[in-house]
Amino acid sequence: MKIYFVTGNESKFKEVNSVLDFIEQLDIDLPEIQEIDSQKIIEEKLKVALNHTDGKFIVEDNSLLINGMNGLPGPQIKWFLKTIKNEGLYNLTKIFGTEATAKVIIGLAENPDSIRYFEGVIEGDIVSPRGENGFGWDAIFQPKGYDKTFAEMTHDEKNNFSMRRIAVEKLKDYLNNNA
Amino acid sequence: MKIYFVTGNESKFKEVNSVLDFIEQLDIDLPEIQEIDSQKIIEEKLKVALNHTDGKFIVEDNSLLINGMNGLPGPQIKWFLKTIKNEGLYNLTKIFGTEATAKVIIGLAENPDSIRYFEGVIEGDIVSPRGENGFGWDAIFQPKGYDKTFAEMTHDEKNNFSMRRIAVEKLKDYLNNNA
Repeated sequence: MKIYFVTGNESKFKEVNSVLDFIEQLDIDLPEIQEIDSQKIIEEKLKVALNHTDGKFIVEDNSLLINGMNGLPGPQIKWFLKTIKNEGLYNLTKIFGTEATAKVIIGLAENPDSIRYFEGVIEGDIVSPRGENGFGWDAIFQPKGYDKTFAEMTHDEKNNFSMRRIAVEKLKDYLNNNA
Repeated sequence: MKIYFVTGNESKFKEVNSVLDFIEQLDIDLPEIQEIDSQKIIEEKLKVALNHTDGKFIVEDNSLLINGMNGLPGPQIKWFLKTIKNEGLYNLTKIFGTEATAKVIIGLAENPDSIRYFEGVIEGDIVSPRGENGFGWDAIFQPKGYDKTFAEMTHDEKNNFSMRRIAVEKLKDYLNNNA
């Protein structure tokens, strides 16, 4: 049975496809519910995907949590970027501290009763924007133990240890052990 | 044809019902999409409601915008309350200023091709929490021209000029003129 990665984002698909070469891209629009719990967002999307066609599906959710904000922005990071931008996110650290968590959760639905989640987490700090690579909030996120932001790393440097990579490797292990 | 106000919130229903005595409450669960545009949130909810039963439907969305945050928290205010609470929202004013907009938008769907929106807006300032009445962010919102927060006003005092009241009166005018 085919495994579809539901995404409209080509570069996300390539990143995941480089580890899992048997998956196929499915670019359909799935509704995103208003939540700060990524698993609930993924669950709703997978339910819709399962009604779309036969197959197994994966969906990912990407979030940035400022630790002092108890879960915010979380999956709502895209609205923070649209409104207050990286500069405003950096300003938030003056109140809530710089410690932050970058997270990717991948959900795998083999059927409606069986959704499994694979999580990749990188701890870091929100810093004043630096670097030109990547996208989104890459310029303000500096992983612990590094002196570069994601936007100052090359594509390969970042992908070697990114939260998406960690989550995909966990999914790969699961699929290999349950083929 | 019946007009249903879709809400699980009894006190919101009473407030609207006191102006529009012919509406009925319909307590069904409508999905809330992740958006900062209230009209899009309302539109998706009304589409689901119209598939539920025959009738006309009203849905409301309540939001708080910190003017310096370009639309945040907006309809996502409930997640800000859950995570950083009123104290954290007040702290945001140290970066983004105190000016804020309280907004209620009511959507009326007579059929899928005709959704009308009625807006009530109150300008104010975010202040350090004061008062025990009301709920949500009432304790930190002080309308322009008043020296009390919403939480320091009685129920009747607030309802006389609230953003919900303004929106409901506009809806009433529309319904009276199009009966």
